[in-house]
Amino acid sequence: MKKDSPEIPRKTIYRLSVYLRCLARLKDNNIQTVSSEALAKVAGVKPTQLRKDLAYFGHFGTRGLGYDVTELSTMISDELGTTSLQPVILVGVGNLGLALLSYRGFEKEGFEIVAAFDAEPKRRRDKQIKQPIVGMDELKEFVHKNGVKMAILTVPAVAAQEVVNQLVQAGIVGILNFSPIVVSVPEEVMVNNVNVAIELENLSYFIQD
Amino acid sequence: MKKDSPEIPRKTIYRLSVYLRCLARLKDNNIQTVSSEALAKVAGVKPTQLRKDLAYFGHFGTRGLGYDVTELSTMISDELGTTSLQPVILVGVGNLGLALLSYRGFEKEGFEIVAAFDAEPKRRRDKQIKQPIVGMDELKEFVHKNGVKMAILTVPAVAAQEVVNQLVQAGIVGILNFSPIVVSVPEEVMVNNVNVAIELENLSYFIQD
Repeated sequence: MKKDSPEIPRKTIYRLSVYLRCLARLKDNNIQTVSSEALAKVAGVKPTQLRKDLAYFGHFGTRGLGYDVTELSTMISDELGTTSLQPVILVGVGNLGLALLSYRGFEKEGFEIVAAFDAEPKRRRDKQIKQPIVGMDELKEFVHKNGVKMAILTVPAVAAQEVVNQLVQAGIVGILNFSPIVVSVPEEVMVNNVNVAIELENLSYFIQD
Repeated sequence: MKKDSPEIPRKTIYRLSVYLRCLARLKDNNIQTVSSEALAKVAGVKPTQLRKDLAYFGHFGTRGLGYDVTELSTMISDELGTTSLQPVILVGVGNLGLALLSYRGFEKEGFEIVAAFDAEPKRRRDKQIKQPIVGMDELKEFVHKNGVKMAILTVPAVAAQEVVNQLVQAGIVGILNFSPIVVSVPEEVMVNNVNVAIELENLSYFIQD
């Protein structure tokens, strides 16, 4: 866990990711500087919000000139810890697991899914993927040898807690959980949940007449 | 948009979904009443948080007896608007779209993906799905005829904004966006974003040494 800046809100960290993506698009279009108003607009936030978020990192831009696109990108990548390619493993090679394994966009974003683990690594699958599918018995050794800290969890709900225990034991400290269940972990392990049904329910609430 | 209860925090609505899933598991195990402490524990929140969340809806349980599991489930489903099966469409039948279309868990949660739309509906796909894949030219008519209000968006980033415009024009008011881009919508339309790379980046920040 990052301990030196406990006062930065979780939502600010999420927004940094959004700013980083917007800056990448500006770079693609050979734009070298951007005003806080323009960057805020493409990121879908208020300019005051953007300035407040960046102020946590002591970055204010140059008055009248705006932000240097490359400089700000590098600063944000450094903060997020994604400057170098991070190895990630995926556990649970079902439909969703396969879809994520074949997604080509992660490397551009600083992550590489280096291997997939499954209780039945040899089961026939609908889709060819480039990563090896390995049995759970090799998890611990693989994680140590490759310095892996993060895992994507796409196993069924019934298996989720047990697999999480194995991941924690193997030394994983960040889990992106797609299983529709709340998993328990020690305090030093961080879990982010992605639950499509919950997102749909949340939408459903807000669009009621 | 739901207008009669603007003061309920977004996070409370998310937690309602979590409580609902915990209650479903209690029901599966034939448990009829549950204390706020026990329900809070399985939901991964503090009991005070649970009681505060439910108090927004005027539901306090019976002192000393806890909550009636069925009654609380029904109350929450009513609030979320998921008592009856809601039709949802999916747009963009690539890897992720196919994985979501073949996920069997949505109906249990109150949602049914009734049809998929794609710019190339006849393109060969790796996987058989039960829903029809339809061309975008039929979107508007389908949405009107079937009273669809929600859409899952799994198109590439470059196509996302244009497709969102078409969805809004067709009458969709809730969009679950998996495209890695911030989309613009009119005020009356609600967008929830699911971005796997951003979730990974967020984890990455918090697990830094």
